[in-house]
Amino acid sequence: MHRAKPLPNLLVQRYHGWKATTFAENKSWYRRLAEEGQRPKTMLISCCDSRVHVTSLFGADQGEFFIHRNIANLVPPYEPDGNQHGTSAAVEYAVNALKVAHVVVMGHSSCGGVAGCHAMCSGQAPELEEKSSFVGRWMDILRPGYERIKDIEGEPAQRAALEREAVLVSLENLMTFPFVRDRVEAGELSVHGLWHDIANGALEQYLATEKAFSPI
Amino acid sequence: MHRAKPLPNLLVQRYHGWKATTFAENKSWYRRLAEEGQRPKTMLISCCDSRVHVTSLFGADQGEFFIHRNIANLVPPYEPDGNQHGTSAAVEYAVNALKVAHVVVMGHSSCGGVAGCHAMCSGQAPELEEKSSFVGRWMDILRPGYERIKDIEGEPAQRAALEREAVLVSLENLMTFPFVRDRVEAGELSVHGLWHDIANGALEQYLATEKAFSPI
Amino acid sequence: MHRAKPLPNLLVQRYHGWKATTFAENKSWYRRLAEEGQRPKTMLISCCDSRVHVTSLFGADQGEFFIHRNIANLVPPYEPDGNQHGTSAAVEYAVNALKVAHVVVMGHSSCGGVAGCHAMCSGQAPELEEKSSFVGRWMDILRPGYERIKDIEGEPAQRAALEREAVLVSLENLMTFPFVRDRVEAGELSVHGLWHDIANGALEQYLATEKAFSPI
Amino acid sequence: MHRAKPLPNLLVQRYHGWKATTFAENKSWYRRLAEEGQRPKTMLISCCDSRVHVTSLFGADQGEFFIHRNIANLVPPYEPDGNQHGTSAAVEYAVNALKVAHVVVMGHSSCGGVAGCHAMCSGQAPELEEKSSFVGRWMDILRPGYERIKDIEGEPAQRAALEREAVLVSLENLMTFPFVRDRVEAGELSVHGLWHDIANGALEQYLATEKAFSPI
Repeated sequence: MHRAKPLPNLLVQRYHGWKATTFAENKSWYRRLAEEGQRPKTMLISCCDSRVHVTSLFGADQGEFFIHRNIANLVPPYEPDGNQHGTSAAVEYAVNALKVAHVVVMGHSSCGGVAGCHAMCSGQAPELEEKSSFVGRWMDILRPGYERIKDIEGEPAQRAALEREAVLVSLENLMTFPFVRDRVEAGELSVHGLWHDIANGALEQYLATEKAFSPI
Repeated sequence: MHRAKPLPNLLVQRYHGWKATTFAENKSWYRRLAEEGQRPKTMLISCCDSRVHVTSLFGADQGEFFIHRNIANLVPPYEPDGNQHGTSAAVEYAVNALKVAHVVVMGHSSCGGVAGCHAMCSGQAPELEEKSSFVGRWMDILRPGYERIKDIEGEPAQRAALEREAVLVSLENLMTFPFVRDRVEAGELSVHGLWHDIANGALEQYLATEKAFSPI
Repeated sequence: MHRAKPLPNLLVQRYHGWKATTFAENKSWYRRLAEEGQRPKTMLISCCDSRVHVTSLFGADQGEFFIHRNIANLVPPYEPDGNQHGTSAAVEYAVNALKVAHVVVMGHSSCGGVAGCHAMCSGQAPELEEKSSFVGRWMDILRPGYERIKDIEGEPAQRAALEREAVLVSLENLMTFPFVRDRVEAGELSVHGLWHDIANGALEQYLATEKAFSPI
Repeated sequence: MHRAKPLPNLLVQRYHGWKATTFAENKSWYRRLAEEGQRPKTMLISCCDSRVHVTSLFGADQGEFFIHRNIANLVPPYEPDGNQHGTSAAVEYAVNALKVAHVVVMGHSSCGGVAGCHAMCSGQAPELEEKSSFVGRWMDILRPGYERIKDIEGEPAQRAALEREAVLVSLENLMTFPFVRDRVEAGELSVHGLWHDIANGALEQYLATEKAFSPI
């Protein structure tokens, strides 16, 4: 049994704050959203990290962004093997059912998942190589990225590069989904890669023309 | 290749709005979060749905909530089979690495994923039964919940009950993770189940003592 | 000798209530706070008045607010004269050691300290003018505020204005601390002035643009 | 000028949560508190530390506790020298004006102020000896306590003992205030010394009979 506990009082009070302000001011809008369903223009794929507030960063209104957050903002390659793929399900739903116009993948600085991947691939975290390590197996997605950055001088620089690779690998994997590729080729969907620096609030975007990340 | 496009102007503009306000007012706080790492007290598991703004709902400050969002806020059962399990990786990281004190699973009304599961389980969506349907395979997690609500009168009532089952099944599955169960039994972790009604802003919590959801 | 007595039973009982509920539900969180130290984002300066519950008012979680409470929420001017300045020590610790991002000074209605200051400055409380009156000497900090409100019509209005002056004088004095001024000018610290009405629960904030307090 | 900024949105939302719940449920009580003034039974002197929630610990209702919080919960000795003594003013107001029946001084584990005092007195923090160090001069109050614990084996044990000395020195200093001593001797006021362990939620009280702190 799950033995769920009541919500801590603190969160109850804060919820009522939302109810009395944001909700109260937008009541009819919420009702419409509920009745007519969501109609997001953009899917955002970002990390679970508590320091990355994507809704705040993009001034997201209720109903605007379909948001998937997982460890290290990764998209695995297309594998229709009948197994459970939560991220692939989110992408499929966003693209096929909601028909979003944009998919944005956003990485960030000091990413714990990426640091774990770096430690694992460089032989410093054997426990992450174990079959039973969910984080380790999940970070396997980023192994091809590690190969591309492993000759950079210095671990901090390697990790920073690997955080950006987490975005690029995901963008590449996204294109292995036939329904994504088709819509991108038809000009109906565009994909975007970002990297966010928590310390100084900077945001970089990947420019295909320059094959590099560049500050916004 | 992934052909990433530059970020749409609208989002660029909004990002600069964030930079000039929220970031500017909290600059030193962001630097500290970056330098000292995150220390969230709570993990939130909610749906990708664009209408569900968990950070807003709980007045979340940067650094407070570790947030995983997937289709229908589902947690699969513990399966250390070496495959990629993004949700399990997020749970493992939150509980073992970040040592959060609370895990909150929040479902919501008009959930598209749950509606799909209902259609699939009631024989109305054979395409979701296909091996290649990521959404279908992901919603398989909720099949045990469907069994418990299928005799309720009327489809809308069944779907509303299934949305709450998505929370309960996830809470049950959470307890199949040894590291979750151990910490819950040691009194070091508590789990909570919520269901949010988008139309009227209501929030219900699961009360184990009453074996029912009850308005907050 | 100090002849300390055992804690009254009522408080013993309530403490056990806290231990069995709030503490029990957040055990692991408290352990982390103890091990890793505090990291508050905000310093709150408010009155000792028993009716002003700042933690409740702002849904404060353990670890969020560094709180200094003194009579009439006053900050004295910067005086590095080698004497004991408890408030200045608290400000120094919050800004220099903890590097908070915000300092909030909150005054309130029916403030006994402010009423005392008003009586003293208007000649109605000669006992507060005595050298041995700690309250009188402490309220000397607010004398410049009295000068600004003494021509308002009616004593109740004067007192209400003086409560807001207690906030403004404190904000001005805060800026005489070099380490505060430097960080404010560097955009790394912001200061905020509030006044809380106990009777109706209202909260006003000082808006520099309007040079006035305005309801939130 | 002080350049006060508007209150961060997050705190605005949380305030409205308090208004819609705690305040709404106790409206008439707040009005009485405002009209009739406060009537606290107990004065609490505790640290500013963000991890020490005294109102939560003692289930404090609005109007019950007159709370003074400063660095390291210190009370200086009685010095009616005409200078500003914020803590002495708070004690004077609580005892003479409000006529509280109890004064409780509560110390706590991992106290940054006490650690600073230890470093200063043991010659490891010369910067705290400077005239301009507000924290250093404030912690001078605790020097007599350092003399009593400096021969204990090991720094962690010394610091833990010094945290309790911060309580005992304050209780001793309290008795140097004539109006405190008179009321204690008349049996109209009692003083209490506590030490709170953040990590395990424990609370110890000083027992004069045993000349030691003992768990509650």
